[in-house]
Amino acid sequence: MPAYKAPLRDMRYVLYDVMGGDDLVALPGYEDFTRDLVDPILEEAAKVCEEVIQPLNRSGDEEGCHFENGMVRTPKGFAEAYKTFREGGWTAIACDPAYGGQGLPAAVNLLVEEMICSSNLSFGMYPGLSHGAYVSLHGFGSEKLKQTYLPKLVDGSWSGTMCLTEPQCGTDLGLVRTRAAPQADGSYKITGTKIFISAGEHDLVDNIIHLVLARIEGAPEGTRGISLFIVPKFLPAADGVRNAVSCGSLEEKMGIHGNATCVMNYDGATGWLMGEANRGLQAMFTMMNEARLGVGVQGLAQSEVAYQNAATYAKTRLAGRALSGAKFPQQPADPIIVHPDVRRMLMSIRAFNEAARALVTWIALKSDIAHRSADAKERQAAEDYLGLMTPVIKGVLTDQGFANTVMAQQVYGGHGYIAENGMEQFVRDARIAMMYEGANGIQALDLVGRKLPKDGGRALQAFFAEVSAHIKERGADKELTAYVTPLSQALGELQQATMWFLQNALGNPDQAGAGATDYMHLFGLVALGYMWCLIADAARSKAASADGVAERMTQRLTTGRFFMERMLPAATTHLARIKAGAGSVMALPTEAF
Amino acid sequence: MPAYKAPLRDMRYVLYDVMGGDDLVALPGYEDFTRDLVDPILEEAAKVCEEVIQPLNRSGDEEGCHFENGMVRTPKGFAEAYKTFREGGWTAIACDPAYGGQGLPAAVNLLVEEMICSSNLSFGMYPGLSHGAYVSLHGFGSEKLKQTYLPKLVDGSWSGTMCLTEPQCGTDLGLVRTRAAPQADGSYKITGTKIFISAGEHDLVDNIIHLVLARIEGAPEGTRGISLFIVPKFLPAADGVRNAVSCGSLEEKMGIHGNATCVMNYDGATGWLMGEANRGLQAMFTMMNEARLGVGVQGLAQSEVAYQNAATYAKTRLAGRALSGAKFPQQPADPIIVHPDVRRMLMSIRAFNEAARALVTWIALKSDIAHRSADAKERQAAEDYLGLMTPVIKGVLTDQGFANTVMAQQVYGGHGYIAENGMEQFVRDARIAMMYEGANGIQALDLVGRKLPKDGGRALQAFFAEVSAHIKERGADKELTAYVTPLSQALGELQQATMWFLQNALGNPDQAGAGATDYMHLFGLVALGYMWCLIADAARSKAASADGVAERMTQRLTTGRFFMERMLPAATTHLARIKAGAGSVMALPTEAF
Repeated sequence: MPAYKAPLRDMRYVLYDVMGGDDLVALPGYEDFTRDLVDPILEEAAKVCEEVIQPLNRSGDEEGCHFENGMVRTPKGFAEAYKTFREGGWTAIACDPAYGGQGLPAAVNLLVEEMICSSNLSFGMYPGLSHGAYVSLHGFGSEKLKQTYLPKLVDGSWSGTMCLTEPQCGTDLGLVRTRAAPQADGSYKITGTKIFISAGEHDLVDNIIHLVLARIEGAPEGTRGISLFIVPKFLPAADGVRNAVSCGSLEEKMGIHGNATCVMNYDGATGWLMGEANRGLQAMFTMMNEARLGVGVQGLAQSEVAYQNAATYAKTRLAGRALSGAKFPQQPADPIIVHPDVRRMLMSIRAFNEAARALVTWIALKSDIAHRSADAKERQAAEDYLGLMTPVIKGVLTDQGFANTVMAQQVYGGHGYIAENGMEQFVRDARIAMMYEGANGIQALDLVGRKLPKDGGRALQAFFAEVSAHIKERGADKELTAYVTPLSQALGELQQATMWFLQNALGNPDQAGAGATDYMHLFGLVALGYMWCLIADAARSKAASADGVAERMTQRLTTGRFFMERMLPAATTHLARIKAGAGSVMALPTEAF
Repeated sequence: MPAYKAPLRDMRYVLYDVMGGDDLVALPGYEDFTRDLVDPILEEAAKVCEEVIQPLNRSGDEEGCHFENGMVRTPKGFAEAYKTFREGGWTAIACDPAYGGQGLPAAVNLLVEEMICSSNLSFGMYPGLSHGAYVSLHGFGSEKLKQTYLPKLVDGSWSGTMCLTEPQCGTDLGLVRTRAAPQADGSYKITGTKIFISAGEHDLVDNIIHLVLARIEGAPEGTRGISLFIVPKFLPAADGVRNAVSCGSLEEKMGIHGNATCVMNYDGATGWLMGEANRGLQAMFTMMNEARLGVGVQGLAQSEVAYQNAATYAKTRLAGRALSGAKFPQQPADPIIVHPDVRRMLMSIRAFNEAARALVTWIALKSDIAHRSADAKERQAAEDYLGLMTPVIKGVLTDQGFANTVMAQQVYGGHGYIAENGMEQFVRDARIAMMYEGANGIQALDLVGRKLPKDGGRALQAFFAEVSAHIKERGADKELTAYVTPLSQALGELQQATMWFLQNALGNPDQAGAGATDYMHLFGLVALGYMWCLIADAARSKAASADGVAERMTQRLTTGRFFMERMLPAATTHLARIKAGAGSVMALPTEAF
């Protein structure tokens, strides 16, 4: 059976030693979030994840959700675990205190998210989706709607969903067909079918609040005619009358079996408009940007738990002898961690995980600044980074997170293919994160097509300037050359790629489209490489510490060196692909496929 | 529901136009294998695969195998399909005519294998494993054993297994504990437990012949004390008495659900020694080399069928508009194949598949020459190539084949995650090929540690010389520069990597171990790049043909250009990783993981 131990030491190191999380208290409204308050929250989260949620991960996958008479039964133990989770206040941590939330900084909240998603992705999606609905409602709902729904969403007695996708449309929401007919009382009757609705129906809560994209009768075609509605399963005003929304079936899918993926039917269900008519997509995308960061964290989270189990296996499974001679001659064979190829896999995952966690924390802190800072300029700069990095974090952390679960599974050899060892579940569960909340190809297009040119490239220039300044500042420091020099090269490659787009894609957007995914990964490598420079810098300054600390700092410096020597060089290949352009990508006629 | 159409045109192109398959008839014993004989075999194979085997792929995955009272029931329809398969003579095609086989060339047989494994990997494994047993028995059994078992294995009324793995050992067969006690009549009593035995028990045949690795009492420790035994489920000599071998349970696994993965218990089962005592591993490895080529084909096969379905989906699913302006303004949206990132994925898979098929066919022809040629020198040269390329084909085609199924699934967006669309099954099924018949890390070590230095590097030098000669010969040809120049660079990188091992790994084998997987993939890129040069060369010479041929040749030339521009550049990254050496890979103490 797979195990999970929250990497609290790594988390605290990133938050405080690398990213200066102690400065959070300087932000208005965050005065209380000292280390003394935050540390116990992280420890308590670790406890509930390790002891309550993680033990249901395998069994939830095996059992899956059951659909009977329109109701969905979650796997055994989920309801009890959710009760514990909710009563512990975990649904409320990232919410507005005005509605009963705890107002935790995003930087702390995303570390908790990582633990939840490492423990049990299927379980974590119930409160996760609900939080997406909370964000939209909080941002766009009228005060009356907020007063009615938010306290229950915050305390977790109700949950929420995001109903976007229909059979004929996912990415292209302009094709939404669900209709909304205005009623005399100001409400709407919603009719249509939504698919792939995570947590659309389940038995963990008293009421489910659906946020639904639909087209008001007579609205313009395409994306400019789509509005957002709130459609509760039970009508609160009518004292709990059942609304005309129901689950038609559950999807059989590759993984996240413990989460109910529903077909939802709206048969003239009562709903209320949220925000302005025909501007539903704006409200949705606000939520989605936050959700995309969360999905990036899911990739990291699965990579982390897969790593932990692969490392344990590698230390205990005996096979062969070290190439340099037996390390444990008294045993029938050496543990497989002596083999360089096994090490290569473990180091690759680890070197990714540490930097990815730093990247998420760095950007989460920008989110905190963007929401809280009293300084408008600082807010804008933080907002710029958040927008720029969101597709990178979503796309790169889920692509690489998935690849890492495959690598961790490979460490087990044939035993990785066996369900009870749990490694194949990590692969199956991690796979979804590359597809939902905007498939990763969409993230790449968002980065290249929207985020790069936005505000005349202001966000990108700020990032380049920051990394360049770091390189300049640390470049002469001999202890850091092994980190700064490779970063400098990769940054140069990213800048070349950007220039190539500027010179070639303006007249032919296919040139950007054909290179977008490689650009996103090249960007991710530079961002993760920069994180390693920051981690190494912090580690170096503590490397003279006594006891175990110095040793751990050396280990971090080594892991960072692995990243720089063995992972960052992929930047060169990405640049070569980008520069190859769209020619051979687009040349074949459609019928040749 | 996913579909499959055997790519007969591509297969014939590779076999005849690129690889000169017409020359097969020059080999002794192959005089009959003209195009006129071979083409109908390929067409007939396509038919049985498309119409009989492929329709059971999804249902077989859903239903899986059932274990009841020691018996295994295969999924609905498998028994009937197997009967058709067997009666069509398909179990016999690659077998010795002396025992009822058809003696088909390996080059043709592996194309048939590809079709079978594209159609239904789980089904294909039953005759596939059986053929492995056939090969060992044919190579190492006494004439008496051969007369008893081969005809039935060949006609498919019996099947065979390979019983190597035990709970405590997979890769490291020196740890085998199964015991063999000599009996007065020359037989042995076999006692022990074997795991991960594909097709260990099932309902398709009348008898199952297990080839079992075991240790004769008093044999030396380690790999030099292991012998190979033949242990039938029913004893033919005793007129079908049940032997003391039984299936203890089935494994629940990630994929290939239609194939029974068995725990096999030997409780003093009667067996007979095959080949020499204590030399069981040699017999096993002979079979395994052949099996590894077959597993490489499985990677290609899953990649091919996944590609076909992704291409169909991309041509029919509507979302968004082409970046360069609507292509189908009369429809609500364009088919997603207009999007460069979707094209990138399809082209990547396609560019791999065509070259991988060429590589398999090229090496299969070497295998035919090695087995058949009258010229000893030619036989040896072919044998050298076969040995060198086997780990490359196994490792690269399964790693990349799996990655391609993931990419094809990604084309579907969220719909790729839904079981009924079948894409996620390709991912789950393809995953096993990276692990069994020697995990891919073992293939890399085999290549670097055994195949490179073998006979003073003779095989490698021959390959380098052949590719170099091609580059020299075609380098000045302007029509081929786009292929030959990138190959030349990648070959240079492979040669640098080889030199780096020579200079750095002799004193420290970890330097080779840490770079082995990257070396294998670098090697694969050069081999596939060379295949593209051969394909392009042949296509160019037919590009002036009339009708559809010229068009298809242009498409091949474009696909090859895609490979050269966008896939081959990864060679640079692999070289950088290799040259980074073992330092940061091996530096951490075990307890740091």
